[in-house]
Amino acid sequence: MAAPFSFSERGATQAVEEGRTLSPKFDADGLVTCVATDAASGDVLMVAHMNAEALARTIETGEAWYYSRSRRALWRKGESSGHVQRVTEMRIDCDQDAVWIKVEQAGAGACHTGRRSCFYRAVPLGKAPDASLVLELREAERKFDPAKVYGKGD
Amino acid sequence: MAAPFSFSERGATQAVEEGRTLSPKFDADGLVTCVATDAASGDVLMVAHMNAEALARTIETGEAWYYSRSRRALWRKGESSGHVQRVTEMRIDCDQDAVWIKVEQAGAGACHTGRRSCFYRAVPLGKAPDASLVLELREAERKFDPAKVYGKGD
Repeated sequence: MAAPFSFSERGATQAVEEGRTLSPKFDADGLVTCVATDAASGDVLMVAHMNAEALARTIETGEAWYYSRSRRALWRKGESSGHVQRVTEMRIDCDQDAVWIKVEQAGAGACHTGRRSCFYRAVPLGKAPDASLVLELREAERKFDPAKVYGKGD
Repeated sequence: MAAPFSFSERGATQAVEEGRTLSPKFDADGLVTCVATDAASGDVLMVAHMNAEALARTIETGEAWYYSRSRRALWRKGESSGHVQRVTEMRIDCDQDAVWIKVEQAGAGACHTGRRSCFYRAVPLGKAPDASLVLELREAERKFDPAKVYGKGD
């Protein structure tokens, strides 16, 4: 398993944006944002965070590891549910504070609520938001029963 | 234009995850994460942030507004470049701290470096990251000259 690894120190903007060295910009909490999309459909499955260790383990193993802000713990996706994510490609953005992974999602879904994607509600557009705004369901049927799948959340 | 609007106060987890009221979870800086994907290709174009006003304006106008953390300012995407993003769909995630927008990207690209997407470099997988790691270019050719397009950045 990935040993603790110090990613490269960040150089000037030009080096970060145009260089070919991985030098992530971790925020004050030591995290980068990670977007996971379905390698087949392109849908966004979830947005989560990685600390340096989660990022290193994901790179080494080719399976998604995250850092749970609520549990304050390293988190192998699918650890309790079996719904692991095999990473087919990882990309880093221009200023290296966000990661995009394309994944093959094992099992019924990525979301702890039982849906395939965490993004199962749409926001209607074209009108200033007010108290009448009602979210619209999108592929919101449950694919699995979270109470049966999760021991301690995932 | 959207007047200052107070999004709903957040209720219990059940209401936030299963309800149809938009009650975003802004972080300590007053921001939610926003992922913009290309409505045609599904590619992730950029990851940015929205404060309450940017979110409200995006909902009202159907064009992407963000909040620039570096400039500490509300930011209409394409304001200086003309590379506006027309939002074809907005979704919110289970705990309502991340937004996914599908956009029609005007102009040559979304990235301030001149690429179509901010994610123009891939991280090789399958080996623990070390000093030998070299990012691989992906659709990294410049689509426009940022020096000519941007007055003050975008």
